[in-house]
Amino acid sequence: MEREDLFRKISVANDKKIVLLVLDGLGGLPVNDRTELETARTPNLDLLAAESELGLSHPIAPGITPGSGPAHLSLFGYDPLKYEIGRGILEALGVGVSVGARSVAVRGNFATLENGVISDRRAGRIATEKNREIVAFLRERIKTIEDVEVGIYPGEEHRFVLVLTGDALSDGVTDADPEVTGKPITYAKAKNEEAARTARIANLFIDRLTRELADFHPANTCLLRGFAKYPAIPSLNELFKLKAAAIAVYPMYKGLAQLVGMEILETGRTLQDQVATLKRHYGEYDFFFLHVKKTDSYGEDGDFSHKVGIIEEFDRWLPEILELTPDVLVVTGDHSTPAVMKGHSWHPNPVLLKSAFQRRLPANGASLDAIACGPPDGQACGKVNVASARAKFSETACARGVLGTFNAMEVLPLMMANALKFKKFGA
Amino acid sequence: MEREDLFRKISVANDKKIVLLVLDGLGGLPVNDRTELETARTPNLDLLAAESELGLSHPIAPGITPGSGPAHLSLFGYDPLKYEIGRGILEALGVGVSVGARSVAVRGNFATLENGVISDRRAGRIATEKNREIVAFLRERIKTIEDVEVGIYPGEEHRFVLVLTGDALSDGVTDADPEVTGKPITYAKAKNEEAARTARIANLFIDRLTRELADFHPANTCLLRGFAKYPAIPSLNELFKLKAAAIAVYPMYKGLAQLVGMEILETGRTLQDQVATLKRHYGEYDFFFLHVKKTDSYGEDGDFSHKVGIIEEFDRWLPEILELTPDVLVVTGDHSTPAVMKGHSWHPNPVLLKSAFQRRLPANGASLDAIACGPPDGQACGKVNVASARAKFSETACARGVLGTFNAMEVLPLMMANALKFKKFGA
Repeated sequence: MEREDLFRKISVANDKKIVLLVLDGLGGLPVNDRTELETARTPNLDLLAAESELGLSHPIAPGITPGSGPAHLSLFGYDPLKYEIGRGILEALGVGVSVGARSVAVRGNFATLENGVISDRRAGRIATEKNREIVAFLRERIKTIEDVEVGIYPGEEHRFVLVLTGDALSDGVTDADPEVTGKPITYAKAKNEEAARTARIANLFIDRLTRELADFHPANTCLLRGFAKYPAIPSLNELFKLKAAAIAVYPMYKGLAQLVGMEILETGRTLQDQVATLKRHYGEYDFFFLHVKKTDSYGEDGDFSHKVGIIEEFDRWLPEILELTPDVLVVTGDHSTPAVMKGHSWHPNPVLLKSAFQRRLPANGASLDAIACGPPDGQACGKVNVASARAKFSETACARGVLGTFNAMEVLPLMMANALKFKKFGA
Repeated sequence: MEREDLFRKISVANDKKIVLLVLDGLGGLPVNDRTELETARTPNLDLLAAESELGLSHPIAPGITPGSGPAHLSLFGYDPLKYEIGRGILEALGVGVSVGARSVAVRGNFATLENGVISDRRAGRIATEKNREIVAFLRERIKTIEDVEVGIYPGEEHRFVLVLTGDALSDGVTDADPEVTGKPITYAKAKNEEAARTARIANLFIDRLTRELADFHPANTCLLRGFAKYPAIPSLNELFKLKAAAIAVYPMYKGLAQLVGMEILETGRTLQDQVATLKRHYGEYDFFFLHVKKTDSYGEDGDFSHKVGIIEEFDRWLPEILELTPDVLVVTGDHSTPAVMKGHSWHPNPVLLKSAFQRRLPANGASLDAIACGPPDGQACGKVNVASARAKFSETACARGVLGTFNAMEVLPLMMANALKFKKFGA
C-alpha cells in the first residue's frame, strides 16, 4: 500500500484542533557556541519545550538543502520528491498569482535585442517600476493568442510571469532562452506532440511582445523559461480529511498552502495581525498553518542578531496562541537558514510537539538539556522559573528529544495521530 | 535491489541462537510522570539494559497505530505495507484455523431474517455456547458445495469463520452484507471474472445455511465479509535461512508466526510454561519468538497497575532465559498500548538488543538514565547493584539509546547481523 493510500484509508475528521507554527529557516548554526535559537531569550518556548516532545526533522533527506517549495510540501505531509513544483508555478506563487488546472505558468525575463542577437538576457536589470509600466502596456495589447488567454504579471527588476490559460495546454516545452548573449532569439520547442500547440502559442507570444516593445530598448524582447503546469497534488482534505487554513504574509507561502487546498485567511503584515487572524477564525477550521517569514529573511542576510530578535518576538506572542489550547501544537521550521551561511541549509529542523498523548523526557531527564539553557551572559537561567530552567527549545535539546531525528514529511502524520484523527491500520 | 532480495543474497545459516521476546503492547504513556515500564520494578531488565543497545522502533511509520497483524509482520522483518493480511485470514488465525494456499477465509456473522429482511446483523449477539451448537449442527449438514470443501468454525457471540477450499478460488468478492437492517439478504458479487465461481459458491452457502437454520431464529441467516486468501509471504527460512519457532499462547499470534513459516511449539498458558517450552526446544531451532500477550490485554482494559504487574512478572522469569545465553536477545513490543489510551497507539516501541557485538553508551551516558531508575518509593535504586543502577529499561532510556529511533522492520535484520548471519554486501 502506498503511503498516501494509507492516509486516505485511516484518516477521520473530528473536532480536534491542530496548529502548525512555522518559523521559516528557524534552525541555525552556532556563533559563540550558540545558534540563533539557543541565543534567543525564549522563556515561553522553553516552558513549552519542557512539556512537549522534541526532535529534529530532515526537510527532504540528510544532506539535502531544500527550497521553500519542497520544504513546505514536506511539512504539509507530502513526499517532496514525488511532487515537483515547476519553476513557473513557484514564480507565479511568488508574485501572488493563482494558477488553475488549465494554465501553464512561465518565468519571463525582459531582455535586449540588438542587431538581431540577444545582447543582454536581463535588459540591464531595469527598475521594478519600469517593469510595472511595461507590463501594464503589454496587458492592454496582448490579451489572447488564438483562443488562449494571456496573463502577464510583473516581478522584480527584469522578471515577469506569463500565465497561458486554455484547453489542452502542456508544459512539455523547452526553454526559449539562448543561455548566452550574442545569439538570436531562441524559440520554445515541444518535447512531445501534445505540447506542439503550447510551443507555438509561446513563440507567437515572443514575437508579439518583441513587436510591441520595439521602442522600449533595453527591454525589447523576452526569454521564457520553466514552463510548468499546476501539479496534481491531492488536497489535505482528500488525504487527511482536514479543513485547513493558512495565515501567511508572503505570496509564495500563501500559494504553497493553496496548492494543498488550504484556505488563505486575510491577515496583516505583523505577527500580532497573524495571531489576531488565528483567534478570529479559530472556530472555523481544524488545521492552521501560521507562517513567520522573517527568521529566514534575516538568516539569508547573514543577520544573526535580528534573526534572534524575530525568534524572541515570536516567543512574546506564543502565550496568546497557547490560550487557544489547541489539541496539537507544533513549532518548527521548514528548513534551516543559518545566518553564518547566509542561505538555506540541510541541517535538520528543531521540532516541538505538544499534545495530551505525548511522551516526553521526564523532568530530571529534561534537566540534562538545561545545560544549553540561557544566553551567554549567564543571567537568564537564574531569572526564569524552575519549569523553564528544565529545558530549552534548542537544536541541542531537540537532538536528544524523544521524537528522535525523522523526516519532516512525518510531522503531519504525527500531528494527525496526536489529534486522534488516524484510525488503527489493520487488525 | 529490493530489500528482500538483499536479505536472500546475504543471509547465511549458522548455529548462533536468536531469541525475540515480545511483550505485546509494551510501550506506554506516563501516569505520575512514569510509563508502565518505568513504573515496574524490573531489576533484571535494568541490569540487562545497562549492558545492551537500546532504541525505539516505529511499528509502521511515525504516527501510524497498527493492529497486531501488521505490527508483527514488521517485527518479523517484513514491510507491513507490502503484505496486507485480509480480515478473513486474521479472523481465521484468531480462532486458530490454518488456511492453506487453495483456501479463501471469510468472516461470518449469524444474523436474523424476518419477513424477508435482515432485522439484526448480529442475531441478538447470541451466546458463544449457542454459536458452538449451531456450528456443530451446520458442520454435519454442509460439508461441500459443488467440489468446494466447506469449513465452519465458531467465534465469539455471533461470529464465525468460513473457510472454502478448492481449486481456483479467489478473494475478489464483495461483502455479502446489507450493512444496515431492513434490507433483504445481500449476495456476494465477483469483482472480476476469476472470482465468479467463488461468489457463486459463497451465495449457495448463504442459501444452504439459511435453509438449514430455518428453525434457529434469531440465528437464521448469515452475512459474509472480508473474503481473503492466504498472503503469499516468503518464509523466514526463504529470506533469512532461519529455522524459526514460536512460543505463543493466543491463536492470532500462533497464526501470524505460521504465516511467516515458524513452527508453532506446544506450550501452556503461563509465562513459566512458555519459558519451559523455550528451554525444552532450545537445541532444535536458531530463532525463537516468545510472545507475552497480557501486557496488551491490560493496556486495552486501561489497567495500568496490572500491566505493570505483567512486566514485573516477565522480569522475574528473564534470568531463566538469560541462562540459555542466546547469542542475540531482543526484548521489545509489537506496538504500544498505553493504559491511559485503552488501546493500541502510534508511540514507538522500546527495543533492547543484547549481543557480543553491540555498541552501547559509555558509563556516563548510561548513568544519566539512572535518574529514571527505580519505583516511585525510591527504594530500588539503593538495592540493585552498580551496573543496574546505571540504566533502566524504559521508553526514556530507549529514546536516548545508541540504536536511535528506527523502523521496527529493521529489528530482525539487526538481530541477523548481530548473530553473524549476514554476509557482507558488495565487495
